[in-house]
Formats: sequence, C-alpha cells, structure tokens
Amino acid sequence: MPLVEPNTSPPFDVLRVSHVELGASDLEASKAFYRDALGMVVTAQDGETLWLRGLEDTSHHAIVLRRGAPGTCLRLGFRVRTEADLDRAAHYFVGRGLEVTEDRPRGQGRTLHVRDPFGVPLAFYHRQDIVERRLQSYGAYRGAAVQRLDHVNAFAAELQDTYEWLAGELGFRVSEYTETDETPPRLWAVWLHRKGNVHDLALTNGLGPRLHHVGLWVRGEMDVIHACDVLAASGLAASIERGPGRHGISNAFFLYLRDPDGHRVELFTGDYRTLDPEFAPIRWDLDDPRRQTLWGHAAPKSWFEEGSPFEGVEPRQPVLPVRPVVAR
Amino acid sequence: MPLVEPNTSPPFDVLRVSHVELGASDLEASKAFYRDALGMVVTAQDGETLWLRGLEDTSHHAIVLRRGAPGTCLRLGFRVRTEADLDRAAHYFVGRGLEVTEDRPRGQGRTLHVRDPFGVPLAFYHRQDIVERRLQSYGAYRGAAVQRLDHVNAFAAELQDTYEWLAGELGFRVSEYTETDETPPRLWAVWLHRKGNVHDLALTNGLGPRLHHVGLWVRGEMDVIHACDVLAASGLAASIERGPGRHGISNAFFLYLRDPDGHRVELFTGDYRTLDPEFAPIRWDLDDPRRQTLWGHAAPKSWFEEGSPFEGVEPRQPVLPVRPVVAR
Amino acid sequence: MPLVEPNTSPPFDVLRVSHVELGASDLEASKAFYRDALGMVVTAQDGETLWLRGLEDTSHHAIVLRRGAPGTCLRLGFRVRTEADLDRAAHYFVGRGLEVTEDRPRGQGRTLHVRDPFGVPLAFYHRQDIVERRLQSYGAYRGAAVQRLDHVNAFAAELQDTYEWLAGELGFRVSEYTETDETPPRLWAVWLHRKGNVHDLALTNGLGPRLHHVGLWVRGEMDVIHACDVLAASGLAASIERGPGRHGISNAFFLYLRDPDGHRVELFTGDYRTLDPEFAPIRWDLDDPRRQTLWGHAAPKSWFEEGSPFEGVEPRQPVLPVRPVVAR
Amino acid sequence: MPLVEPNTSPPFDVLRVSHVELGASDLEASKAFYRDALGMVVTAQDGETLWLRGLEDTSHHAIVLRRGAPGTCLRLGFRVRTEADLDRAAHYFVGRGLEVTEDRPRGQGRTLHVRDPFGVPLAFYHRQDIVERRLQSYGAYRGAAVQRLDHVNAFAAELQDTYEWLAGELGFRVSEYTETDETPPRLWAVWLHRKGNVHDLALTNGLGPRLHHVGLWVRGEMDVIHACDVLAASGLAASIERGPGRHGISNAFFLYLRDPDGHRVELFTGDYRTLDPEFAPIRWDLDDPRRQTLWGHAAPKSWFEEGSPFEGVEPRQPVLPVRPVVAR
Repeated sequence: MPLVEPNTSPPFDVLRVSHVELGASDLEASKAFYRDALGMVVTAQDGETLWLRGLEDTSHHAIVLRRGAPGTCLRLGFRVRTEADLDRAAHYFVGRGLEVTEDRPRGQGRTLHVRDPFGVPLAFYHRQDIVERRLQSYGAYRGAAVQRLDHVNAFAAELQDTYEWLAGELGFRVSEYTETDETPPRLWAVWLHRKGNVHDLALTNGLGPRLHHVGLWVRGEMDVIHACDVLAASGLAASIERGPGRHGISNAFFLYLRDPDGHRVELFTGDYRTLDPEFAPIRWDLDDPRRQTLWGHAAPKSWFEEGSPFEGVEPRQPVLPVRPVVAR
Repeated sequence: MPLVEPNTSPPFDVLRVSHVELGASDLEASKAFYRDALGMVVTAQDGETLWLRGLEDTSHHAIVLRRGAPGTCLRLGFRVRTEADLDRAAHYFVGRGLEVTEDRPRGQGRTLHVRDPFGVPLAFYHRQDIVERRLQSYGAYRGAAVQRLDHVNAFAAELQDTYEWLAGELGFRVSEYTETDETPPRLWAVWLHRKGNVHDLALTNGLGPRLHHVGLWVRGEMDVIHACDVLAASGLAASIERGPGRHGISNAFFLYLRDPDGHRVELFTGDYRTLDPEFAPIRWDLDDPRRQTLWGHAAPKSWFEEGSPFEGVEPRQPVLPVRPVVAR
Repeated sequence: MPLVEPNTSPPFDVLRVSHVELGASDLEASKAFYRDALGMVVTAQDGETLWLRGLEDTSHHAIVLRRGAPGTCLRLGFRVRTEADLDRAAHYFVGRGLEVTEDRPRGQGRTLHVRDPFGVPLAFYHRQDIVERRLQSYGAYRGAAVQRLDHVNAFAAELQDTYEWLAGELGFRVSEYTETDETPPRLWAVWLHRKGNVHDLALTNGLGPRLHHVGLWVRGEMDVIHACDVLAASGLAASIERGPGRHGISNAFFLYLRDPDGHRVELFTGDYRTLDPEFAPIRWDLDDPRRQTLWGHAAPKSWFEEGSPFEGVEPRQPVLPVRPVVAR
Repeated sequence: MPLVEPNTSPPFDVLRVSHVELGASDLEASKAFYRDALGMVVTAQDGETLWLRGLEDTSHHAIVLRRGAPGTCLRLGFRVRTEADLDRAAHYFVGRGLEVTEDRPRGQGRTLHVRDPFGVPLAFYHRQDIVERRLQSYGAYRGAAVQRLDHVNAFAAELQDTYEWLAGELGFRVSEYTETDETPPRLWAVWLHRKGNVHDLALTNGLGPRLHHVGLWVRGEMDVIHACDVLAASGLAASIERGPGRHGISNAFFLYLRDPDGHRVELFTGDYRTLDPEFAPIRWDLDDPRRQTLWGHAAPKSWFEEGSPFEGVEPRQPVLPVRPVVAR
C-alpha cells in the first residue's frame, strides 16, 4: 500500500480549499454560465474580473474569473485557521526554498503566494471579506443553485510525490485511493481532505500539473437535473460533458460541465463524513470500473485527457504511463 | 352504498374542468402570488383582468382573475369534446329549464353560460386560443412551476343530489368517496372525474355551494417544497394554510395555500389513473382519519370551514349536519 | 406534413395499451429484475409464467413473462371500453380479412387475438381480474417503485402505413412526430395515444415490426436515480443501456434498461396531457438532436438498432433507408 | 450580545457528538421504528441492548437502546481526536472536581464517564469498533435511509452557564442563537458545534437538563417524505410529531418523530458549513416566528414542553421563565 501517515502536526493548519482563479475570455459568457445556469451569486465585477460565490457563502468569492489567459487556471486558494498560520506557512515555504510573495487582493485579507514544489500557483489566506449570505433568498435561486465550492481535482505528473507532500507534510488525509495491480502496487489517484468530508484536493495520474475540475456543492440530485434542463433551454447543452451519474469513489452524484473557456466544473452532492478516527482509506483497483461510475456509463475520452494548465508551468508527462482511453 | 351508475351516454361529452374565474382586488398582488411564487405563465393582462396558464398549457388560460368581487368565484369552466357537444349541451340545459346564454370571451371560443341546478355559474366551450407552450422553457421556471390545472373542489349543500346530477346525467365517474357510518350510510364527500385520473370535480358536504379549492398540478414533491421556501422568502408564508402532507384519499402529496383574496389553491401531485373498467370506487369511512391525511396531521379549522362563495348564489346550510371541527 | 386526421368514430374504442407478454429464459432472473430492482408486484407465478403489475394497478397484470422464446415479444394487449367493443372489434378485423381467435387467459376476461395488418400479435379485452392495489403499501416499495405500464414503442418497417391504420382507422391521435427534411417530408417516427397523455404506442422507422421498448411509469426522477443505485448494488449495472436523461420529444425523464432476456424497458416520468382539442401535434426535424435528448448525450448504437422481434413474424427492412448510427 | 469567545485551545479536542444511549421498553418495537422505518442498520443485539448505526457509518453505533428506564436518556457520547485527548479530558474533569470513571463498553474503545457540571451523563472515547459501511448497499435501503447521527438538542435550565462551559472551556463554536429583546438581551437558545456544520449540540431554555431530540442526517427531502409514507403504511403515523418543514435557524428541512418510548428524533437535512473564520453567529429574535419555521406552521405544544430526562438527574426549572405555548 503506497500510503503514508498524514502529518498530525503540520507546520500550518489548512482549513480547506476555498477558491480558484480561472482565465476567461468573455465575462458575460461566464456570467451566463455560472450565475444564470449554475445559480452562483455575483459578488462583484469590474472590466477585468468577476467574483462569484455560492448561495450559502458569507465570504467574498469561491470562483474568480479573470480576463486573459482563457482556459488557464491562475491559482488555487486555501484558507488557514488563523493569521498566525499564515506566518508559519511563510516560514515553512521559505525553509523549503520556495519563493513567497504577499499581497491583499480584492475581497481577501493578507495573502501568501507560492508555487508548490510541482509548480502549481497557490494562495493562502486566513480571511475573505464578509458578504451577505443568500441561503434563504429562495426567490432568487436559479438553475443548479450552487451552495458552495467543495473541492478541486488535478492531474499530477508526479502523483506519489505530490501526495506525499500534501499528506506527509501539510497533513492532508486520504479518504479513497486507486492503485495499480502491480507488485508492489502504485498509486494512481488519491482523494485528500482537510475539512472532514471526501475531499478538498484530489489527484489523478496524468499529464500535469493541470486542473481537472472544480467541484461545486449542490443540495441534491434534483438540482443537478434542473441544471441540465436549464442548460439545455439556454442553448448550453454542449457544456454537459459527462453525467449525471454516481461515482463509486466518494459515492457522489455528479455532473461534469465545461465552462465557456473549457474549464471543467463538477456539480456534486452525496458524499459522506470522514471525521472519525475509525475511518480507513477506501482502496479501489484501477481495473474496477465501479470506481469511475457505479452505474456503468463510460466517460468520454475528453474527461480522461483534457484539463486546464496552471499559469506559468508546463505540464509534464506522468511518471506512470497513462492508459489509452477507449473512445465513447 | 349511496352511489349511482354513471351515465355512459351523457347528453354531451365533457372532457375536463378547464378553468376557473376568480374575483380579485389587486391584480399585481395576484401576479406576485400566481406568477412569481407558483410559477404560472401570464398569457395576458388588462386593467381589469389577468389570464394565467400552466407551463405545459398550449391553451390561453387556466385561471382568470377579474377585479371586483374579491373572494368570490365567478365561474367554473369546462371543455367539451366537439363543437357539436356545445349544441347538445345548450339543448340539454334548455330542456332542463335552465337559462343559457352564449358569448365568446377573450381567449375562448364560443361559450355557453348556465347556472347548474344548484346555482353554480358554469361555462362550457370547445376551444381556447392556442398559445405557446412553455414546458421546456426551463430557464424561466419559478417557484412551484405549476404545469396545469387539475381539478376543482367545492362545498355542496345538497351533496347527494349534486353528485347524482353530475354522475347520473353528465357521466362523471367516481374515484373515491366518503360516507357516514349510519344505516344506510350517507354520502359525505365524492371525487368525480371525466379525464381518467382521480378528479375533475370533488364535492364535500358543507355550507354551499362554495368553492373549496382549485387544484394545480406540479411535477413532484420537490416543487412543492421549493414553493414553500419561495413563499417564505417572499414574505408570503402566511398564505400557507395546510401541508405539505399526503392525503389518504387520492394519494396526493398536497399543499394548501390561500391566494391574496383568500381563494384556496392546492398544489397537487401523485395521484393515479382511473381509466380501466376494473377500477372500483374506493370507499372511506368518515371517521377514518387517514382519508384526510395519511401522516396524521390535523388540518386547521379554516380548511374545513372557509371557502369562496360563487357569484350570485347565497350558500345554503347543508342537508347533512356538519360536524364540529376541533381547533388546531 | 404526412399526418392524417384521426378517425373520431373508430369501429371500436381502445382505452389504452394495457399489457405486454415477453418470452423469458429464467423467471427467477426476471423476478430479480422486475420485482426487486424495478419494484413491480408479482400477482401470480407458475412454472411457466410470471404475472407482474405496477404498484397502483388494481388489475391482474401489466407484464407477463413466459418461459420459452426468450427475447421475443409474444403479444401486445389493449383494453377496450366495453364488452360490446370486443364484438365490434371482431367484426372489424374479420371484415379486414384478418383471422380472429378468442380465449380467456389467466387473469383476463374474454380476449380476442389477431395479427395486425403488419403481423404484430395483438390481444384485445375489456377486463382483467381485480387485485389488491399496493399504491399505499409504502413499506414494501423497492427500487424504481414502478406505478403502472404507460406505453409501448415499436420499430415499423412500413411506418406511414402502420401509422395510417392506427390513426385513420382505430382513432389513435398524434402527440409528436419526426419527419425528414425531404420535399415532401416523410414520417420517420410518431407518438400515438388514446388515453390523453403523450403515448400509448410509438413507432420508429426501422427493421420491423419489432418491439423497441416497454415504457413503465415512475413517480419522479428520484425513483429513477434510486433504481440505478439499486441495479448497481445488485450487480445489474450492465442492464443500464441509456440515461438517465431528458427527451426533447415527450419531455420525459428516461432511463433505458435491458431485462435479463434483452427486452428493453424504459423508466419514464414527466410527460404532459394531450386531452385538449387545442393540442396540435409537435413536429421535430429528423436532424434536430434535441428530439432524442435535450441534454445532448449520444445514445448507444444498440439503442438505435436492437429490439425484440414479435413472435411469428420475420422483421422486414424498412421502406425508408435507416441512417447509419455513429458508435458511442 | 450574551456570547463569549470560544476557547481556541481547549483542554482536549472533541471531534463531534457521536452517539446517544436511550432507555427502551421493547427492543423489537424499537427495531421496527429505527431499522424498518428510519432505515438504520442493526450492528448487534442481545437480550438487553440494541446497537444501531447509519448507512454511511463505519463505526459500531450511533444509537444504543437499552432495556429499562424507558424514556430516559442514559448518556451522550463524544469522540475525541486522539487517545491522548482522553488523558487530557480525564485530567481536566478531575481538576474541575468531577468524578471520572473508565470502562470499555461493547463496540467502543477506552471510555471516560463523567457528569458535566449540570448533571448530564457524558461519555468520551477516541474510537469505536470498525464495521462494514453500507453506504452503497442500495438494495437494502429502507424508509428514511438515515446516513449518520448529526447532533443532539437539549433543554438547559442554566442555559447561559451551560453554553459558557461548552464554548468558553471546551471550545464549542456558535452557529446561530436566539436572544430575548430585553436590555441587555438574554440567551434563549444556542446552536454549538465542533465539526464545522450547524451543530453538534444545541441548547434551549427549559426544564432541564433534558434531551430534546437526537438529530439524524438524511440525504434529502425525498427521504423524509418517504419516511412519512412508510411510517403511515406501518401504522406508525402517530409517531410523527411535527413537520416536515423548514427551520429558519439552520435552514434544515426537518421532521420530528417520537420513538416507541417517546424519545424525540429529528430527520434532518439541508444545513450548511461553518468552517470559515468569516462565519459570524447568526442572531435571531425570540419573537421572530421564522426562526422556528420558515413556512409559518405552529409547532405542537408537546414539541416545546416534552423531553427525555437524563438518567440520574432531576430536571430543574429554568433560570429564564418559559413562555406559555399556545396549543395547536
């Protein structure tokens, strides 16, 4: 088993993955997708940037769309528990020889910027600005009625190393994982969390680093179905890439969409708690088709192969050879 | 058993109950209720009248609200199968000594107006104007997303006689009925249909004739729940009179609302087909609490006692004594 | 427009399609599928035959599975309004030169057997035996909780002729249809009903006659999703052929399954009423992908090409050339 | 504002409320309720005790029912993060002058027993035995399909003191609270959590300490509705005390039941995350009816007044006078 013990005393305390920043070409098109069809709330907009949040969010943004570099993921954002954790994070990264810069972006408190050891641009901060919660503004619910950001999923070229850094150093815990049937087995994909459900950050072996998708939490299956109907009625049926269906891994009811710039978004509901110490990581065999889909539907080739490159880092071929995907 | 055989060769062929006309005091308030919270479509509006339809309707109106006489039901409308059925209906009513007038109201074809033998103002017509169906305009769905009008429920003072007229002459068939435990039993309430589901027209013993409620069809339970949330978020929680719950009779999942003029509206889903000749009317004992509610919730006193009088007819005390209702 | 006027005075009055009989190889496997995963009720079983009904049915059977000829459709059953309609039907078929036999099968009243002009084995009867309705036996609901049979869909080799017989003679009405973009256009598929919703019987151009699928009515989308989960948990994920999804035609939320003998079954919910005279048949262009699926998912090749032959009739190549289907 | 700062460095680290033990009179009746209607899994049973868990649980029990003392709550159980936290907890309680005993109950690791300063019997432990997760055993789902225990709600006679102990010492954080409109306001009810959603433990002013209810997590509204139907079909409609409805506080969709011994159980879904540092406790005015119910339904008197006493402690009159409840 290629798993390591998570660090129970990490150098700083990450609460959860808390936002993503994506390159976009046309903010009006993005708004039609994220606000009108997915039901997210526009917190702010200027000529270059659109800040969006979920209906239950009291914080300023969960997705930030910036004009320029369309199709590129600009940044993954993480909240840390206290301001002191920010200092400890800076200390840790500098000690690892990684360059750290600091600023205070719109809607966010003091923020550290760093590339992780694999080149992914990360932001760490303790707070965002507080905004009005729209959870009970039911008259304004639209489409998927996205409640909040849940997780991020990325291709990793050096999956075992990336995982070991996140778990062994930063204290991410594993909920589920896929390994090859080699002897010894090798880790193919891993679901990692800090917040006590299935994941904050999942990694899959592949040309990477690249963003695979942003997972947005919806209240239930009916919101996903309504989102499909609304997308179809809005001329956006082509944005539906896969699903709805049920993952074996995570038990999630899912729908995968491609936003107007090709970024993949998952509508996601139905996972479970992983808080208890009894919870042991669930192992899946790479050849078990149930991990991808409990119901047996093949995913399209694009789902296995396409992703958003991260700004400023060239994706690398993965250490483990990627299996050929049969066309749908 | 106080039931009679339905007339299988009625003098004219009623397809279904197809619209109601209600007196209203403030059409903007009505629109906020029926369009914004219930999700009905506004077909037309002028200074005096508001015409509304359901999302699946291709016909001009299912509910007509007219300024003046707020709280009064102005008319129940029925579609007949052919234009020739209109002539046969006129012939039948005149033969019964009932006065018949004819006009062509906005959005409707040639229409007969008559008071039934108990004083209720009825309209019969073959066609309405054809309008655009919004069934697949999912981006415009709001609140309860009402699909269509399903039925009307009324208090009858002379319940047995009213029932015998509808079934024995006009060919309405019984789906379910409640009778007293006297010897012989007496009919307390009856669900009558022409269209092959549970009801077009239900009658309950009480101060009558009065309209008890208009039943509007919704797609499922989640639309009812969303309607409650939207009503609450819109400051209209006080319009919720009873439910959501499950009727024993009809198996319907229900929510009873009071519109801004006090007219009672039911959001309704989950009944069944009654087309087959094997289907036998289902008998309920008046003392069986499951007929009103499978889940055991008491209905409020208002639900038993209040209704909309019909224009031009004074409600009469019922032939059967009404039971005292215990306050909730 | 290749449509004809439906006969408003048909020689006999068909109420609805009311059962199908299917050849099966292993009745225990059939029971695991129809009862345990689909939630149908077993009315009776002997060594050779299994009689199944829906939860709301008070009649003896909606699906009859008979050992032998697995994968063959043995018969489509239709209810007529009165016993006299049976006599009229016999007279009509004999007058058309078609051979009529009569029997009284288990659970059914007097029954006429005839092959329609295209070779399909049909049964007509007025009544089935009355059995207990399980609609409110909620503790026994399983899987999809199928409520009733809704419709049958078949490939027709002589589609225009088959349609004209059903509409022009037997009085079936069209709800929706697909035609080619030729001049003049030709009918590719047609949805026909007697009971006032979207269909009792749909026809598609293809190698025929063959049964495409049996449509079973479920209460809503959540029952379809639960059925997928139950099938997956029961090792029957491979029976899921297509969906869940939304048809443009009929607006139905659908799931297509293959039973243990390969017969195709649709779980179906969400269509609409077609009772009103205003309702005009909805036209779809054969090249409009939205007719098949509002959400844009391609159907698998098998869905377009495979079907159950009817007992005793060799399927014929269709009059209109079938288009090549792109593999999924 | 009567709130205090939560202790960010508590003497030991409570993960969540993790089980309750309830006195029962008839374990078969309990099983019919919790297993057949609520869908919980029986982990073990002997002549005196029944251990139940949720479908997603991998740990031995969430509810323990013990014969004897029916209607009494025997114990609230909490998980702590590490074994070392158990030692720290023992040290803390002894330092507070509270008597601590230790054992190893069936299905649980090393366990500390203590009465809190208000007399409530508590158990603290790090682990339970690991059992099979039934999350994806969809074929065995029944009734409400309870996934896990979410929270416990109790009456407190000394509400401000109890709250200050839990927050100021043990580090529970407030999600929402109700206060009187006095000057200064006084705390009437408070929702406290450790795990990052709305609550682990809620307190309401009243004759206490007494258990108000155990909150069980279900997947969505449809599971609650199905539970009502199943309870009704099982002759258990009388167990439905309140709901379904939507709380203003917590935004939960709720149903309150009384188990065969009168213990109150809430089926609960639809709350939100409280992990982020931006999240500020939400204040409700005691006179705002929306806190209890967004939809405006009055709760029955029993819901305000009845609760399960804790074993070995006489409930006390509350410090704040309880308001008279209007009968439903």
